[in-house]
Amino acid sequence: MGFNIPYTDKKRVVIIGGGFGGLKLAEKLKKSKFQVVLIDKNNYHQFPPLLYQVASSGLEYNEISFPYRKIFQKRKNFYFRLAEVYGVNPKGHTIQTSIGELEYDYLVIAAGTITNFFGNKTIEEQSLPMKTVEEALALRDTLLINLEKATTCTDPDEKQALLNIVVVGGGATGVEVSGALSEMKRFVLPKDYPDLGNFHMNIYLIEGSPKLLGAMSPEASSNAKRFLVDMGVNIILQKRVVDYKDGNVFLDDGQTIPTRTLLWVSGVKAVHFDHIEGELLTRGERIIVNECNQVKGLSNIFAIGDVCWMAEPDYPNGHPQVAQVAIQQGELLAENLQRIEALKKPRPFHYKNLGTLATVGRNKAVADLNKVKLHGFTAWLVWMLVHLRSILGIKNKLIVLIDWIWNYFTYDRSMRFILFIQKHKQDGTQGTEPTL
Amino acid sequence: MGFNIPYTDKKRVVIIGGGFGGLKLAEKLKKSKFQVVLIDKNNYHQFPPLLYQVASSGLEYNEISFPYRKIFQKRKNFYFRLAEVYGVNPKGHTIQTSIGELEYDYLVIAAGTITNFFGNKTIEEQSLPMKTVEEALALRDTLLINLEKATTCTDPDEKQALLNIVVVGGGATGVEVSGALSEMKRFVLPKDYPDLGNFHMNIYLIEGSPKLLGAMSPEASSNAKRFLVDMGVNIILQKRVVDYKDGNVFLDDGQTIPTRTLLWVSGVKAVHFDHIEGELLTRGERIIVNECNQVKGLSNIFAIGDVCWMAEPDYPNGHPQVAQVAIQQGELLAENLQRIEALKKPRPFHYKNLGTLATVGRNKAVADLNKVKLHGFTAWLVWMLVHLRSILGIKNKLIVLIDWIWNYFTYDRSMRFILFIQKHKQDGTQGTEPTL
Repeated sequence: MGFNIPYTDKKRVVIIGGGFGGLKLAEKLKKSKFQVVLIDKNNYHQFPPLLYQVASSGLEYNEISFPYRKIFQKRKNFYFRLAEVYGVNPKGHTIQTSIGELEYDYLVIAAGTITNFFGNKTIEEQSLPMKTVEEALALRDTLLINLEKATTCTDPDEKQALLNIVVVGGGATGVEVSGALSEMKRFVLPKDYPDLGNFHMNIYLIEGSPKLLGAMSPEASSNAKRFLVDMGVNIILQKRVVDYKDGNVFLDDGQTIPTRTLLWVSGVKAVHFDHIEGELLTRGERIIVNECNQVKGLSNIFAIGDVCWMAEPDYPNGHPQVAQVAIQQGELLAENLQRIEALKKPRPFHYKNLGTLATVGRNKAVADLNKVKLHGFTAWLVWMLVHLRSILGIKNKLIVLIDWIWNYFTYDRSMRFILFIQKHKQDGTQGTEPTL
Repeated sequence: MGFNIPYTDKKRVVIIGGGFGGLKLAEKLKKSKFQVVLIDKNNYHQFPPLLYQVASSGLEYNEISFPYRKIFQKRKNFYFRLAEVYGVNPKGHTIQTSIGELEYDYLVIAAGTITNFFGNKTIEEQSLPMKTVEEALALRDTLLINLEKATTCTDPDEKQALLNIVVVGGGATGVEVSGALSEMKRFVLPKDYPDLGNFHMNIYLIEGSPKLLGAMSPEASSNAKRFLVDMGVNIILQKRVVDYKDGNVFLDDGQTIPTRTLLWVSGVKAVHFDHIEGELLTRGERIIVNECNQVKGLSNIFAIGDVCWMAEPDYPNGHPQVAQVAIQQGELLAENLQRIEALKKPRPFHYKNLGTLATVGRNKAVADLNKVKLHGFTAWLVWMLVHLRSILGIKNKLIVLIDWIWNYFTYDRSMRFILFIQKHKQDGTQGTEPTL
């Protein structure tokens, strides 16, 4: 076991995680004098903003994924390694991973976040998160298996529980997946599942705060809410889910909702590494970094993107955990690592907010673009263009576009495949396989 | 538990399996007076002739799969049920399944075949079959994980074993997958895996008989062999694999080949059902049927496609187990079931052989079309047209075409995703998950 990477006269930059930030950094170091090692748990880059479309059968996972080795084909002084990183040894300048130890000259932690179940083990074991391709496919499996079970179920209560979907978390992911599921309910179910008869899918969206899309403008928030209500989503605000047992979701006011499908998109926490702990971390277990993304007190360790927390004057409580911050930090860090090597002073980071978008359904989206607030069809077009532009690879863009056009005109979502993917848990243990 | 299908005045036709035969039969019964129930283990129809392209990263599984409920949208008197069928009770006119019992008036067994390991348990547990979407994805996982392992491996013997691929079975599947892997070796590996250095992938194709493509003409057979030899595949004829242990494939002449990737495409046997046994079966456990696909002695049970065995004058030893036979039998049985109901004599089956095709690589295929034998570019074009035509759905055809054109001009295969799909075994137990 080992990384099998040669020692050369070039300094080695090790990047943990090939998400938006890590990938941008690796790309920008192309013409640098560094040896670059990119480590990821998967052999492909994924595009989290569209995972909800995979979960709701609109797109297939491969359309929003791209193999790292293909991205970095023919690149010199570059190594991709498929591995899970467990810990960092700042004194020895090494990391510990599933394939052994690796020395670094500069370490960049760009590992992002995982779902935060806020300590509730029952919910962690039985709910469905949606942070990775694997989780999105497992969620799709469960949704479709429960529909199949509902067709054969003769107990009306159990049948309705199989058709109830509870989404916890009213951020962009919760809003987007609720909208997509309500379109599936409206356009696909009557055609595909005539045997459900008079039973209907009920979608509940539960948010603890007083409004949806808390990170967006009040206009965006209220427009999104109106769209979802029109589409038949049951929105429950200012309520918290406290438990999930015997197939019932328990809210903090005592209300219960029977469901066999609990989507948990309620919060995230930073990926954890041994020895990057204690006073190095803050809220959401994010790693505290200075204005150049350096980890406190560790001059050759950096963290970028969702995994880190940086206070800058305009963002005294840290940046939002979104792709744009990660991309801009990755870009600047590529420059700064080269400045540091040249004994120049690194430049501080300033986040340039290009805007925030969320889509709810056909012709329905909300957009906060600096001073301009859009909603409806225009926002929806902007949303599509921005996302299409960000997907890696010309062929992927083309195929996503074909699928979107197809889905738009046919009112259909054709990726309704049950793959019986096992639900892998974040702690490495496996959940229960959905069975018939 | 139960099927939850209403009893009506219509007679019920239960079809086990939605492969080529079962699907054609269900489609052709559209305007009949029957209630039709289609049962399958998956919720989608798959296209086995192109599974080898999924396994070798050329196409994604969804491009050659199609959800049954979408195929039968809005169809009256039709029920799809996701279930596994265990056995048949001919006296009670019922079947036993994973979701309970179901009564039938007519039963059609169209369940196809599974991989035949000829009783060798070690090979069954450790080799990789390629009969289903799930198996093709698991095989792709193993191929790609072994390449990743090879990049980090420092023991030259182990590294070479990780790069050796042994394909057992020189029929169409074995020939096609060997060709696809040799193109991956030639066009993709040098760009994607520069860290393999001077190590090369070796592909071995092992066939027990004296020639490849035994079901095709001598011309097709020798052309396919020549193509594969040119492409660097090591062909070993008239040798049998007798064991696989400690990472070595053992041939019957004492030769051993170290490999971590053993593809088993050497034979099939019919899917088994309790109480359809003994004298009802023949070679390959196929169910013996008369010239109207009726099971011997059971007037309201039929079997079509690969699962059955029928002797007709031109095929005294049974038909080849290919899609065309299944499709033609499904089509005729739809007519015959209606004739039987109308108390007319059913018509006997006559197989019309439209030709046989196999592709080896870019511009390289062989075709036996009645009296015309083609090879090379023309055969390759015919192969593509025939397969494109057979894939269900306009969008799937379009996307497969885009992928083929893309792969052709870029010399690339972009679906290189490791999904860590567990290898599910045919007996229901699970194999070992490929790990890093």
